[in-house]
Amino acid sequence: MREIEFWFEFGSNYSYLSVMRIEAAAAQCDVTVRWKPFLLGPIFRSLGWSTSPFVLQKAKGDYVWTDMTRECRKHGLPWQRPTEFPRSSLLPARVALIGADQPWMGAYCRRIMSLNFAEDRAIDDPQRVAEVLNQLHLPAQMILDQAQSDGNKLKLRQQTEAAQAKGIFGAPTFFVGDEMFWGDERLDDALVSASS
Amino acid sequence: MREIEFWFEFGSNYSYLSVMRIEAAAAQCDVTVRWKPFLLGPIFRSLGWSTSPFVLQKAKGDYVWTDMTRECRKHGLPWQRPTEFPRSSLLPARVALIGADQPWMGAYCRRIMSLNFAEDRAIDDPQRVAEVLNQLHLPAQMILDQAQSDGNKLKLRQQTEAAQAKGIFGAPTFFVGDEMFWGDERLDDALVSASS
Repeated sequence: MREIEFWFEFGSNYSYLSVMRIEAAAAQCDVTVRWKPFLLGPIFRSLGWSTSPFVLQKAKGDYVWTDMTRECRKHGLPWQRPTEFPRSSLLPARVALIGADQPWMGAYCRRIMSLNFAEDRAIDDPQRVAEVLNQLHLPAQMILDQAQSDGNKLKLRQQTEAAQAKGIFGAPTFFVGDEMFWGDERLDDALVSASS
Repeated sequence: MREIEFWFEFGSNYSYLSVMRIEAAAAQCDVTVRWKPFLLGPIFRSLGWSTSPFVLQKAKGDYVWTDMTRECRKHGLPWQRPTEFPRSSLLPARVALIGADQPWMGAYCRRIMSLNFAEDRAIDDPQRVAEVLNQLHLPAQMILDQAQSDGNKLKLRQQTEAAQAKGIFGAPTFFVGDEMFWGDERLDDALVSASS
């Protein structure tokens, strides 16, 4: 079973690093990516936090943007510190649930992430998400309708509950079988584990 | 100026990883290590936390021990999950302040860290610290007396305040000039930065 589960959230800056490189990195190891979009907000709230720890803890928050600049340079990724953080990612996450098993998933996720972290634009916006889907030559309206159906809304809530039940406390998080790896820094280790 | 400032705490498991390998890694890059022992407790308390986030956040705490097992395997380090965490490290830190510029500093820090994280033994104990100093053929009683002097106690408080003033929120933390790197995963990047 050469598979890696990839739990991520579009508002999370460290998820940006992994989303941009996981598909190519996994392909090089002949590992299949199982995309698991979820929402961090409910998990943070269950810890008693109103928002990201990068906002709540000033020193850590200040550091994170320096670190992101360096990490993006290291991985050859464009980077612009978002003027709003963390950005709401509800609609993009709902669409990602529809796309999770589709061949367009990787490209869709990279485009949404680039909007947030390379172009400093809002992502929880039907028109913007439709634009992304159109650029991928997909039936935008049909996908948006499906994404906003009650069944799919429930599915995203359930996916977020599943994340919490698995012990996920941040993003990105990777699973190889039952083994958990937290943080973009652990992606390569997780892929090695999935390949062996 | 090929120097790296290394801020660490003997009770911190991720500091263990860096303490065990920084001296050899820095020497390979021809970089000098400036050892900066401090206490995380006062910094955690200033964030409103009574202890380590690995204790306060259950899911993260559960994960950390899996991660440590893997990281120690990766770096070829012995590992035993401490039955008490985080361990008080006041006396070893005070002694480390005395040793910071001494040639025995690296060996002393590795020995204290090994007691905590490879042998599961208490470290905030005059007899045990004396044993370590004796093993290094050092005048244990003289160093302990110096370590417990009022001047040195004050110095450790000031060093911890200096850590906070620099924006340090966890350990290990590295500085190369004004540039901060947080976490054992960033040690290699910090050394590259110090070498260039």
